[in-house]
This record gives sequence, structure tokens and C-alpha cells, in this order.
Amino acid sequence: MSLNRDYDYVQRYGLQVDSPTGNFVLPQVHVYRDVKDMPPCDVVIIALKTTHNAILPGLLPAVVKSDGVVLVLQNGLNVEPAVAEIVGSDRVMGGVCFLCANKLSPGYIVHLDYQLIALGDYRPDYTPAGRTERMQAIAQDFEQAGIPIDQSEDLLLIRWKKLIWNIPFNGLSVVLNAQTDAMMASSPICTLIQRLMQEVKMVAAAYGRYIDESFLTEMMEHTAKMTPYRTSMKIDYDEKRPLEIEAIVGQPLRAAQQKHIAVPAIQMLYEQLQFLNQMNRG
Amino acid sequence: MSLNRDYDYVQRYGLQVDSPTGNFVLPQVHVYRDVKDMPPCDVVIIALKTTHNAILPGLLPAVVKSDGVVLVLQNGLNVEPAVAEIVGSDRVMGGVCFLCANKLSPGYIVHLDYQLIALGDYRPDYTPAGRTERMQAIAQDFEQAGIPIDQSEDLLLIRWKKLIWNIPFNGLSVVLNAQTDAMMASSPICTLIQRLMQEVKMVAAAYGRYIDESFLTEMMEHTAKMTPYRTSMKIDYDEKRPLEIEAIVGQPLRAAQQKHIAVPAIQMLYEQLQFLNQMNRG
Repeated sequence: MSLNRDYDYVQRYGLQVDSPTGNFVLPQVHVYRDVKDMPPCDVVIIALKTTHNAILPGLLPAVVKSDGVVLVLQNGLNVEPAVAEIVGSDRVMGGVCFLCANKLSPGYIVHLDYQLIALGDYRPDYTPAGRTERMQAIAQDFEQAGIPIDQSEDLLLIRWKKLIWNIPFNGLSVVLNAQTDAMMASSPICTLIQRLMQEVKMVAAAYGRYIDESFLTEMMEHTAKMTPYRTSMKIDYDEKRPLEIEAIVGQPLRAAQQKHIAVPAIQMLYEQLQFLNQMNRG
Repeated sequence: MSLNRDYDYVQRYGLQVDSPTGNFVLPQVHVYRDVKDMPPCDVVIIALKTTHNAILPGLLPAVVKSDGVVLVLQNGLNVEPAVAEIVGSDRVMGGVCFLCANKLSPGYIVHLDYQLIALGDYRPDYTPAGRTERMQAIAQDFEQAGIPIDQSEDLLLIRWKKLIWNIPFNGLSVVLNAQTDAMMASSPICTLIQRLMQEVKMVAAAYGRYIDESFLTEMMEHTAKMTPYRTSMKIDYDEKRPLEIEAIVGQPLRAAQQKHIAVPAIQMLYEQLQFLNQMNRG
């Protein structure tokens, strides 16, 4: 299993990170093959693919201190409620990563571009939680490690903002077999991306999360300037791994349907991705 | 050039057709390398890909008798008006092929399934022409050769009917890298195909061509029972040839836009195909 492959490698050789902000190696990392061997933690970051979230009930409870926090740094929508069912909603926080990084091989991470992480504390039904004390403490830890943090008062807002990018670029990268630069260079695809973004924006608004038009423009401009990037979903596809279709596309589509909002481009993307994933997984 | 490759082969070895209705070889076929060597004809069938229609003005006038007919057996919409500009609208007839056949190599045709050809005489603006005498005469010739003919009173209606199949199956076969059987086996793709068909049906209706729901069901059922088929657009894609995107998808999309009808699935398919064609052609 690839988790064990990573474990063996990192335990022996440590972790290597290449980054435009400076390469570094962590020769010794506390790695564990089994959660049973781990001490209870103040902060547990979930960086697992959402396609493996079914194993969280067996992993999580033991490693979180009773007053600890589980920080969900996964893509997609409606991940926190599932984690809240496991550890209680008062021990859940969320966040999204606005950065480009790929794991190229076990223990070897390449950070390509951008580096912002947005945090948002969690309340049931995604009621905005404001800037909580624990969020500020965690943000401080990240920032001391050189990672810029945006402390958001509204977790659901930042989830929808990330989806503005993730739905078009992750989805289309698989359907079109393309990296970001090729998509941005195509006028018809830029039109399609912008229509997908508008649909995401519309659904977010139906949930009271208003994303300014300038954010969409910014996402287009950032992506155009970005180091050509193979999205995480495209890498999963190329590696024949399951795709995070449900978290990134299926959940937002169902959120739209619950509010009776037509999102024909998201719907078609969802159908195409389901097919391609099924063929790919044989 | 592949036209010459075909010429050389067919002149030497004739034409081989494999068909479920019986294989046969035509050892001697009247083939010409140049239209200048051809006698003027009563009936000229255009079986060229629409992507090459720019060469028609140089081919057509000389080979059609003054009282002859050009029969456009191509896919897509709005092909006849362009041919009418070359030879005059009174010498144009159209038709669509409801059959599965592929050219596997020069001079070698494999007919896989179905065999109906629908003919419709042409009038400016696709005004229904009824069952004209010349259409009946041409139909008789086809039928004497064992090819079933549907004589339609309305060319535009049969064009839209063919698009009911061509838009979803030709388009998606390229985007999804799939044959008909894989698409029909996928529930999300069947849903998408039916939505695309509904969009085509809606645009046809805006032009006064009403396609019954039972025809859509029939197309789905026929395709499900069909010998697994690689569509003509998929073959063109695999062979790195230009795709008939404009005739099959672009023209119907613009027809929808002229009537202010939203066809989001056709639009997205068009954008995706343009991108894939561009990448494929380098």
C-alpha cells in the first residue's frame, strides 16, 4: 500500500521539499505506520485524499487530544460535517490551500507556486465561526514556519472560493488531458472555465456566500501567470487512482440541486468525470 | 495525399465492401484522379468530409450535367446552401446516412450495421420540397442496388434527426475517448446524451421541425443494440485528421443562438471539441 511505501521511505531518508521559497530536507520526521503508535495531538491535519475518507473513523479519535483540533485541509465541500460526526463538531476546523504542489515520489514534494493557506473554524451547518482563539494559535504556528495564513471568519466562504478554481481546472484537466497553461491558452476553454466559475459563484450565493467578480478575474489571472500545472485530479487520473469527484464536483452539484439552481456545465463535467474515472479504474 | 492513395489502390484492386448483408468486391471501378477527366454526371454524390468543402468550388461545376443533381450525403447542418452557391439551388439535393460504416484502408469499406439513407430535395432556406420526381428516380437507383431509401418531404427535418444522434455520439466519443457501447453502458453518460438530444430537438422545433420523443428513444435503443461503433469523428481524431466540428456542432449551436435558445450542453461540447481538435492537430 502506498501509505506504507511513503512510511518506509520517509523514516529512512526523511522528507525533501523543493520550493521557489527555498529547498530543504527534513532528515528526521516523526512518522508512524499506525495511529495506535501516535501520541494524542493538539492539532491533527487531514491531508488524505477525500476518496479515502471512509478510513477516518478508524484513524481519528485516538490521535486527537480531548481539547485538540482536527484541521481538514482537503479539497471539496461538506467534508467537515463527516469529520464532526467522528470527533464532535467542537473539535473540527477547516481550511483550503491556495498553492501548487505535487508529491513526485515518496518523501519528495515539489512546491511550484503560490503558498497561501486559508483557515476557517467550523460550526455546525457552516455557521460562520469568526476568528477563534484556537485558529489564531494555529495560524501563528504556520506563520512561524514561514507559511502565510489567511484567517477567515467564514469557512464555507473559503471552501466555495477554492471551488471557483477547483471545479473548472481540476475537472477539465482530466476531461481535456491538459495542464493549466494549455487551457488558459485556449479561447473556447477560457469561456467554458468562466461559465463554470459563474455557476459555482451562483450556488455559493444561494448559500449566502457572496464571491466578488474580482476574485474570479484574479483566479484567471493567477492561473495564466502560474507555472504550468498538472492539477491534483489529473495526477490521480494519470496514476490510475480514484478521483476526488464527489468532494469537488458531486457535492457542489447536489448543493445546487437542493436550491433548484441550474448548473448545466458543472453537471456535464460531473457526468464526464464519472465516466472517465470508471474507464480509468477498469 | 490520401485521395491519391485511394485512387491508386482502387484503380488497381477495385473496391472491397464487407457487410452483414453480404461481402462483395467491385474489381473494376470508374475512378478519376482529376474532375477534368470525368464525364458530366446525372447525379454527383458528395461524400467528402465537410472539413474539405473549401475545395468544392474547384470540383463541382464541371462534373454536373446542366440538368444534373448534386446529392450532398454529408453530415451536419447548412451544407446545402454552400453547394447551392456553387451549382445553383435547383441542382442540389441532400441526404443523411443512418448506417455504420468505416473505411478501414484504401479501397476497403466495412459496413457494420444499419443501412438506411434518407433523401430530401433542396429548396432555398430549406423550404420543404416534397417528394420530387428526381428524388424518386434517384431513390429507385439506390433501391435497385439494394440500399433502402427513405424519401423525405423535408430535408431540414432529416438533417436535424441525424443531428439528434451525431451531436451526442460523435462529440462525446472524442471527448470521452469511447465507442458507442461504453457510452451506452454508462448511466451518467446516457443521462448526458439524452440532455444533448433534448437540446437538439428544441432547436429543431424552433425552426419548425418537430421530432417526436419516440425518435429519441429509438435512437437510444438502436445504439444500445448496435455493433460497438467508433464514430466517424473519433476515427478522424485518432487519425489526427481535422474534425467535422463546425458542420456537426458549430452550425447547430449558431442556429440555436440565432433563436436565443440556451443549449448549454451543446455549447460545452463545442468548446471541448475545439480544444481537443487544436491539441490533436498540433
